[in-house]
Amino acid sequence: MNQDISPLELRRKIRNGEFTSNTSGYSRGFVQGNLCILPADYASEFLQFCQSNPKPCPLIGMATSPGDYSIPKLGEDLDIRTDIPSYRVFENGELSHEVNDISDIWRDDLVSFVLGCSFSFEEALIDDGLEIRNVSEGVNVPMYRTDIDCNPAGRFASKMVVSMRPLIPSDAIRAIQICTRFPAVHGAPVHFGDPGRIGIRDINQPEFGDAVTIHSDEVPIFWACGVTPQVAVEQARPPFCITHSPGCMLVSDLPNSHLAVM
Amino acid sequence: MNQDISPLELRRKIRNGEFTSNTSGYSRGFVQGNLCILPADYASEFLQFCQSNPKPCPLIGMATSPGDYSIPKLGEDLDIRTDIPSYRVFENGELSHEVNDISDIWRDDLVSFVLGCSFSFEEALIDDGLEIRNVSEGVNVPMYRTDIDCNPAGRFASKMVVSMRPLIPSDAIRAIQICTRFPAVHGAPVHFGDPGRIGIRDINQPEFGDAVTIHSDEVPIFWACGVTPQVAVEQARPPFCITHSPGCMLVSDLPNSHLAVM
Repeated sequence: MNQDISPLELRRKIRNGEFTSNTSGYSRGFVQGNLCILPADYASEFLQFCQSNPKPCPLIGMATSPGDYSIPKLGEDLDIRTDIPSYRVFENGELSHEVNDISDIWRDDLVSFVLGCSFSFEEALIDDGLEIRNVSEGVNVPMYRTDIDCNPAGRFASKMVVSMRPLIPSDAIRAIQICTRFPAVHGAPVHFGDPGRIGIRDINQPEFGDAVTIHSDEVPIFWACGVTPQVAVEQARPPFCITHSPGCMLVSDLPNSHLAVM
Repeated sequence: MNQDISPLELRRKIRNGEFTSNTSGYSRGFVQGNLCILPADYASEFLQFCQSNPKPCPLIGMATSPGDYSIPKLGEDLDIRTDIPSYRVFENGELSHEVNDISDIWRDDLVSFVLGCSFSFEEALIDDGLEIRNVSEGVNVPMYRTDIDCNPAGRFASKMVVSMRPLIPSDAIRAIQICTRFPAVHGAPVHFGDPGRIGIRDINQPEFGDAVTIHSDEVPIFWACGVTPQVAVEQARPPFCITHSPGCMLVSDLPNSHLAVM
């Protein structure tokens, strides 16, 4: 399928069951988001968790009321129940199963949250001429649990998860400048250099994603990662929760440039 | 003397011979500049050198015509010949002598250039809560010759000189963000980490200024330095040249915040 498809067309193909895979590389230039759907009983605490931890949990949209499955700000004719290629259903914090449509399990008390993801800033870095190792090696970005505490909110608490991309120092400085413009997709890195300083034991053994090559003249650069709220939700063990499956994102109508604060 | 003196008052005391020392710490909040005065024959090439190398040579003002000793944009009633505490006079690229007033050696073919200096961004970093080691240790910032080529212009060519301040990584990221706002005072750092990568042999033996303590959890961060154009002028060996003496700057009426691009 042609990757240069509009977000609206892509969402329609997903809804019709014609597209059920990873959205990486599709509808280039448009914001893709992490999805988290929680019962109303947990929603205000999760909202507070996101607002207290904007680097790992940058909220770019949410449903205006429980049961609402549209988020007009993020997409024309968007239906949260059908327009994501694959969903993960959690019960009491445990993964139950994956599905391509959640219409039949939708409930009137569910609140949908969409968080920014690293695809947007990776695109901005690549457009500026930087090599992003996980992209050039065709693997998932390596992600690590750290000892950095997020600010807790109600039943939500977690250590921060970070993603890592190796860069030479002058490129790292440029990446910090570029990512600073995009607080809605994790913003500037949180650390560089010594992994042990933020509690990472082995840079070659990420807890999520895949290890990537780090050349001798490169420094590992660490960004707050959207897996953080997933870990917080797992630990809060809500009775019911739905997320996107890894890599199968909500593709929005927002141009990436729309997220730049300057 | 009270350091909270207005730039205009300070310049008047300098002009009257009441103040002949280092300007660091005086008229806090206002831009201080490096001075370079060259014969008209060299001026257009030096201007081109500055414009081709904005990080080490950020031009914040220049006289509008040869022989003019005012720069109204930088200061009310400013007289370049008398309002700097100490001047260095160079002949054929060699330091000849230092004086407190250049009225008697002023010539109708002299063109004055003023370049931004690190005092402005150090103040912004300190105001944000960062510790600047050369300030807290009360010494001159360490400066090093690198193997980074500046873009040559006519008779002016030089390797880049950098200044170094050690920071922990998260503070370094913040410093990069803050300094990016101030391109007129060297802007974002040019390198961090391994000194050898930019041709620095021994971090503890700066070519200019003083060594500072680097703690084990800190990384050396390198900024382009205003000593670079001085080196370029030395190497060009113009028959006549006047600069400020180190630390004895032109104190302008521009608030530091005026240099922020956003």
